[in-house]
Amino acid sequence: MPDVLDVPDGPRGGTGSPGPGGGPVAVPAADPVAGVLRRCRAVVRPALVDAVGGLHPWTGEMAAYALGWADTAGTPDPRGSEGKGVRQALAVLGAEAVGATAADAVPAAVAVELVHTFSLLHDDIMDADALRRQRPAVWRTYGTGPAVLAGDALLARAVTVLAGAPGDHAAGAVRRLCGTLDDLVSGQAEDLRFERRPWTGPGAVGPEQYRSMAENKTGALLGCALALGAVLGGAPEPTATAFERAGRHLGLAFQAVDDLLGLWGDPAATGKPVHADPRRGKKTYPVLAVLAGGGSAARELAALLPAPPPAPSPSSPPASSPGIDAATAERVAALVEEAGGRTATREEAHRQLEAARRALRTVPSARTAARELDILFTGLLDRTW
Amino acid sequence: MPDVLDVPDGPRGGTGSPGPGGGPVAVPAADPVAGVLRRCRAVVRPALVDAVGGLHPWTGEMAAYALGWADTAGTPDPRGSEGKGVRQALAVLGAEAVGATAADAVPAAVAVELVHTFSLLHDDIMDADALRRQRPAVWRTYGTGPAVLAGDALLARAVTVLAGAPGDHAAGAVRRLCGTLDDLVSGQAEDLRFERRPWTGPGAVGPEQYRSMAENKTGALLGCALALGAVLGGAPEPTATAFERAGRHLGLAFQAVDDLLGLWGDPAATGKPVHADPRRGKKTYPVLAVLAGGGSAARELAALLPAPPPAPSPSSPPASSPGIDAATAERVAALVEEAGGRTATREEAHRQLEAARRALRTVPSARTAARELDILFTGLLDRTW
Repeated sequence: MPDVLDVPDGPRGGTGSPGPGGGPVAVPAADPVAGVLRRCRAVVRPALVDAVGGLHPWTGEMAAYALGWADTAGTPDPRGSEGKGVRQALAVLGAEAVGATAADAVPAAVAVELVHTFSLLHDDIMDADALRRQRPAVWRTYGTGPAVLAGDALLARAVTVLAGAPGDHAAGAVRRLCGTLDDLVSGQAEDLRFERRPWTGPGAVGPEQYRSMAENKTGALLGCALALGAVLGGAPEPTATAFERAGRHLGLAFQAVDDLLGLWGDPAATGKPVHADPRRGKKTYPVLAVLAGGGSAARELAALLPAPPPAPSPSSPPASSPGIDAATAERVAALVEEAGGRTATREEAHRQLEAARRALRTVPSARTAARELDILFTGLLDRTW
Repeated sequence: MPDVLDVPDGPRGGTGSPGPGGGPVAVPAADPVAGVLRRCRAVVRPALVDAVGGLHPWTGEMAAYALGWADTAGTPDPRGSEGKGVRQALAVLGAEAVGATAADAVPAAVAVELVHTFSLLHDDIMDADALRRQRPAVWRTYGTGPAVLAGDALLARAVTVLAGAPGDHAAGAVRRLCGTLDDLVSGQAEDLRFERRPWTGPGAVGPEQYRSMAENKTGALLGCALALGAVLGGAPEPTATAFERAGRHLGLAFQAVDDLLGLWGDPAATGKPVHADPRRGKKTYPVLAVLAGGGSAARELAALLPAPPPAPSPSSPPASSPGIDAATAERVAALVEEAGGRTATREEAHRQLEAARRALRTVPSARTAARELDILFTGLLDRTW
C-alpha cells in the first residue's frame, strides 16, 4: 500500500534532505512537523541502528535498504529515501505525554518502526508494487524469497526488542503489539480479498467494510505506537487504550488522505503515477463512497471500473486486476469528483482527525507532548493536499 | 527445506492414517514413537484449533491447509497430510519432564507448532518448493502473496498465544521464542546464501559452517520447544538451557538424516524425487564432508556439481541453481558414498543424538517423560534409514 506518511520530505519538509528529483529542495527550516519528527528520530536512531545491526549481515543489508539508510551493497543512499518515522515519533510522544522520558519509549519506537518496515516489505510483494519511496522495492532488488526473509527478520527483531524492554512493562507491551500484528495481517488480508470482490451488487465492498480494513491495516500500528509509548512510560491501562483509539482514528484520517492522493495527487509530490489507484483497479474510499450512493453516477462509474481478477488455482497462477487505461482513469477521477466522492473523503479525513483529537483529550497529557501530538496530527494531514 | 520430521506416517507409523498413495497403510498399533506423538497431539489440538480459528477466515483457511487439516475450500483433507507434531510433543514432554502437566505446556506447544508451520510456508516460497507433504505448497495453491500473508499471520499468532500464557512465565518464554526466531531467520539466510557460494576454493561452505546453519534452521526450534515447555512448567533457567541444548543437538541429528534421505532416500517413503538434493544443487553435509576431505574424490565430485546461480539484480531476476540431470545426480550419490560421505553423515547423526542425550542427562527429569523423550529421540532417527 502506498503510504502518505512515507513520502520523502516535500516542500514542507524541514530536514534539508534531497527532493524526489535527487536535488536538494529549498525548505522552510521552521516546519514544526518536521521538527517534531526529527527530534524523535534522533532519540530513537542509535537503538534502531543497534537492532538492525544485530541481524544476519544479509538480512541486515536488506533491512538498511528497506529503511532507506543504504542503497544496495550497503553504501549510504544519496537519495535520502528514509521514511519520516511517524510511528517512532508517536511512541516517543506517547511516553512523554504520560510524564515519562523519550528514552523510556525507545524499545517501543524501535519495535513499531521495524514492524512498519516489515509490513511495507511484505505488502510490496503481495501488491506487486515495484517501487517504494521512488526506488525499486526490496523484492525487486533482492528477489522475492530474500525479501520475504528480510521481512520475517524485521518482525522477529521487533518483538525481540520490545520483549527486552527494561522494567515491568515489557510483557504487557508485547501482548499489545501481538494484538496489533493480528490486526495488521487481517487488514492486509481484507485488502487483498477486496481486489477479487465486485464493485456493485451482492459481495460489493461498502465504505464501512473499507473503513474496518483501513483501521486494521493503517490505524492499528499508529494506535499501537502511541499506546506502547504510554505503556513503557508506566501509564495506566485506560490511558493506553485512549491513545490506541486516537492513533486508530489518525490512521483512518491518513488512509483517507492517501486515497485522495491516489486519485488526485500530484505525481511529482507523491512519487506515484497520476490516477494510480483507479488505474490498477484498487478499491478506495472515494470510489466506494460514490458507488454506495447509488444513482446514475454510481452506474456510470461502475461501468468504467475494471473487472476483478479471477481467483487463482494451482493450474492458473494469481493475476492482478487488469486495470484501466489512462484516459478511463481520468474519466473515473472526474466522475468521482463530480459525484461528491472527493468531498466525502475529505470530510471523512476531518471527521477521523477530530475523533483522534477527542480520544486524546479523554485522558490527561503532559502539556508539551500534547502540543507536539497536535502539531503532528494536524500537520501530517495538512501537508498532503 | 524438506523436513524428515514431517513425512507422513510410514510403515512404522501407528495412527492408521492413509499412506502416501492415498490408501490405508497396515501399521503396527504399538509403535512407541507414534504413541507418544499421538498422545501429545491430542492434548494440544483444541488450543491449536482455537489459535487458527481466531485468524482472519482467509488466512485461517490457508493455515488449515498448511497444517494438513483441510484441503482447499476448507474441506477435510482425505490424504492425511498432517505433520507428526514433533515440536508440540517436545514442548509437552519438556513440561512433564520438570514435573508440570501437559496442560501447562499447551501455549508453548501451540506457539512452536505455529512457528514451524510459518517457517515451512515461507521457506517453500524462498526455495521454490512446489510440493509439501505430497500436496502443492501453499504458495502454489493460493499464490505467493497470500502465502506470505498466511505465514505472517501464523507467526503473529504464535507470539500472541505464548504471550497470553497464564502464570508468571509468559514474558521469559516470549523472550526465548524471540531469540529462536532470530536464529531461524539467520539459518534460512545462511541456507539461501550457501546456494550462491562455490563448492570448492575460497568462499566454499565447510562442514562446520553448514552445521551452524543447520543448528539455527532446524535445531533452534526443536531446542526452543523443549525449553519452552520447561519454562512454562516453572523450571529453573539451567534446566531450560540444558533442554534447549538437547533439542539443538537433536535438530542437527535430524538434519543429518534429512541429508541422507535427500541423497539416498526412497522416493516412495520420502515423497521427494530420487537424489532430490544433488539434482537441485543443494549443499548438504555428505557432499560438503567429501569436498572438505580433498583428494581425487573431492575433485571428481566438484566437477559433477552444478555451478551456483548468479546473484540477482533488478534487471536480472533471481535464478535457482540450474541443477544436474538424473544420471549425473546418480553418479554424485555413488561418488559421495564411495568417498565416505554417507558414513560420515551417519556418524554425525549418531554423534549429535548422543550429545542430545547427554545434555538431557545434565539435569533431573521426571521418569516417564524422560523415557518418552528417549523414545522420541531414538525412534525418530531410527525410522528414517
